[in-house]
Amino acid sequence: MSTNALAELAQRLRQFAADRDWDQFHSPKNLAMALVAEAGELAAEFQWLTEAESRAPQPEELARIRAESADVLNYLVRLADKLGIDLIAAANEKIKDNERRYPVEQVRGSSKKYTEY
Amino acid sequence: MSTNALAELAQRLRQFAADRDWDQFHSPKNLAMALVAEAGELAAEFQWLTEAESRAPQPEELARIRAESADVLNYLVRLADKLGIDLIAAANEKIKDNERRYPVEQVRGSSKKYTEY
Amino acid sequence: MSTNALAELAQRLRQFAADRDWDQFHSPKNLAMALVAEAGELAAEFQWLTEAESRAPQPEELARIRAESADVLNYLVRLADKLGIDLIAAANEKIKDNERRYPVEQVRGSSKKYTEY
Amino acid sequence: MSTNALAELAQRLRQFAADRDWDQFHSPKNLAMALVAEAGELAAEFQWLTEAESRAPQPEELARIRAESADVLNYLVRLADKLGIDLIAAANEKIKDNERRYPVEQVRGSSKKYTEY
Repeated sequence: MSTNALAELAQRLRQFAADRDWDQFHSPKNLAMALVAEAGELAAEFQWLTEAESRAPQPEELARIRAESADVLNYLVRLADKLGIDLIAAANEKIKDNERRYPVEQVRGSSKKYTEY
Repeated sequence: MSTNALAELAQRLRQFAADRDWDQFHSPKNLAMALVAEAGELAAEFQWLTEAESRAPQPEELARIRAESADVLNYLVRLADKLGIDLIAAANEKIKDNERRYPVEQVRGSSKKYTEY
Repeated sequence: MSTNALAELAQRLRQFAADRDWDQFHSPKNLAMALVAEAGELAAEFQWLTEAESRAPQPEELARIRAESADVLNYLVRLADKLGIDLIAAANEKIKDNERRYPVEQVRGSSKKYTEY
Repeated sequence: MSTNALAELAQRLRQFAADRDWDQFHSPKNLAMALVAEAGELAAEFQWLTEAESRAPQPEELARIRAESADVLNYLVRLADKLGIDLIAAANEKIKDNERRYPVEQVRGSSKKYTEY
């Protein structure tokens, strides 16, 4: 079953919090706040890189990007778990919406229509 | 295979960008910036809710949270795909790190040690 | 003259960057990215606090909040300086807009209309 | 007195909130969350621009950047006002710290030492 990886992750995070009695801190509000803070840390890894540099980060830089990406995913999965959101289904619906919103023939190669992805 | 769902998502996003010739805009730097902006939109959904309210959002509120969560996941998957990061493996390693960092017996029920999750 | 404080800050930050030849890194895009990263660090200070706790932070917590607030202001002032934005004028215009947008008699005490401030 | 502009802004925002009975929503936690959300909107204005483009934004783009910058400042001033933080003093102290932390002769022209500004 294709959503197994995220479902397993959600289960593992649930256990992690339960073992530490941290569920009390994990309101969706708090989790969203933690998520945006981690997304900020991820952005910080790129802030002084040129776009070209960002395409080929140094190994230690890549390791930090990987770790920050993991933090973002973990909070996102935890938040979705708390609210009963199926992230994979939601992501696929969003892509379908964007396929309609940005028809290939109209937007090809242009960032003009690219105000939002 | 358990990572199928994210791998399929990555493939679909790759196709979406290729069809529109948008790969030129998708440097990791730009994707990280888009990700934190979407994380900010997700946070905005919760900013005036109490923690209790955030645990039981109204249906239309939940729909917006779901859509914003999807945006975050899509940019995260796209960023990871660009840099060859296995998100599921990275997330599991991070949990393992946190299990060592926050031993159950030391941190149970306390947010004192809870400077980072 | 009332905008002196921010103008002096802008001048000092300009000198700081010039002395280090860091102007090359200070594109508005990069500064905006640094700003949201610092805003994320500021948010992180509050993520596990209750609202009540956030109203009366411990001294060391308050010191961190103060330092993170300073980082946000410094990047904001630097960004505005780069783009010739008068922050005080812009802030006052925004308040005027919001006064019209949220008439007292309609929104008093309600977060319903409070989707954006 | 040089901090007048921010002090006046703080006073005006205090009145704005009092008139609408919105003080109840303005816990520092919530204000920090609103601030990072606005910082995310500001970042979004730059996400698909090259650094060069970001140095010379189109007029309508600049107007949006100006408005988002104002939102960030207003929430920052409101947050600082709630916690008794003197933003100008804090910003100047931070610059002094950074002057010590990044000595001109060591860091000139290098982003290596530039992990944090």
